Amino acid sequence: MSRIITIGREFGSGGRELARRIADILGIAYYDREIITEISKRTSLSEKYIQNVAEQKPVIPFPIHTGRTFWAVIPDYGQDVQKQQHDVIREIAGKSDCVIVGRGADYILRDSKPYRIFVYSDDEAKLRRCRENSSSDYGKGAEMSDKELAKRISQINKARADYYEFYTGQKWGDKANYDLCVNTSCVSDLGKLARAVASMC
Amino acid sequence: MSRIITIGREFGSGGRELARRIADILGIAYYDREIITEISKRTSLSEKYIQNVAEQKPVIPFPIHTGRTFWAVIPDYGQDVQKQQHDVIREIAGKSDCVIVGRGADYILRDSKPYRIFVYSDDEAKLRRCRENSSSDYGKGAEMSDKELAKRISQINKARADYYEFYTGQKWGDKANYDLCVNTSCVSDLGKLARAVASMC
Repeated sequence: MSRIITIGREFGSGGRELARRIADILGIAYYDREIITEISKRTSLSEKYIQNVAEQKPVIPFPIHTGRTFWAVIPDYGQDVQKQQHDVIREIAGKSDCVIVGRGADYILRDSKPYRIFVYSDDEAKLRRCRENSSSDYGKGAEMSDKELAKRISQINKARADYYEFYTGQKWGDKANYDLCVNTSCVSDLGKLARAVASMC
Repeated sequence: MSRIITIGREFGSGGRELARRIADILGIAYYDREIITEISKRTSLSEKYIQNVAEQKPVIPFPIHTGRTFWAVIPDYGQDVQKQQHDVIREIAGKSDCVIVGRGADYILRDSKPYRIFVYSDDEAKLRRCRENSSSDYGKGAEMSDKELAKRISQINKARADYYEFYTGQKWGDKANYDLCVNTSCVSDLGKLARAVASMC
């Protein structure tokens, strides 16, 4: 069975960078936006559209968790995107050892017993990390004020929590659902942290 | 400033053993029941009495968290034991690098920025670990049924949570209050885990 590491992460926590470093250290595949690209190929839908659909819970007027396969009640293309995402995640996990970022992969792959990591940090650290990341839309020189950026970070994380909870019936970031929860608030050396985490997986 | 590692742990999670191994690996002091022994020396109270007082929240009929130093409203000897515990923890943390298990040390030492670890596991794993630990009161051959033992584990952890929350005003095991939360449910090699965690601290 492949060694699968799933990484849930708060936006602004550095979780994605940590995930990439862990994959590099272990010399295994890394999947994040690559999943969106693959779904785009399969569905001929634009990556931007898929990104929206695949990371937001759908707006539907009735409760969903009834034990049915989850995409069965999602309207129009969203249904297909969710099914494709589910299939792609299962396929890549079956192919080789890998690190998969977000997308409820910990839940989708629960039967394969992945090593489930959640990365988080306090609000101040998230703001600081976003500012320091000059390649991000919110990095140094970006026009948003700190207050606006803090609000944006909170909105993105709320959307991630809603998405996860909608599709899994579990609470996003609840430590009971993970093997390891890492707080990056005081972490200055992500490389050192990645080496330590990689040795646990 | 000393390197201080605090370890909160669910009863049955293997947290104490993990803590001892981390201290061994780093070659630093380890404090757990040693704190009780020291308080006993200072107060001439029995270790058993101190153990009870120092790990249970007092039964008092009015709310406590008012910003006052916390032991000021605890009746009789309990007040002294809590103050002594607080003093002992601060003294040992000031003396040398160390690992301190439980007793709200993460909160007491918050100004010294300790590396705060919380160790937990699911109920089944806690039961299994208690049974496997033949030196414990609940190990192999002990008379308690699994159902009774599960209830006892739950009671002990409830008491720890109550104690922590009473004295800190924080939720015990809430990942926001820790730098690392480690789930030992699927961990078969505590030594390997200890080496990885030690390299993070």
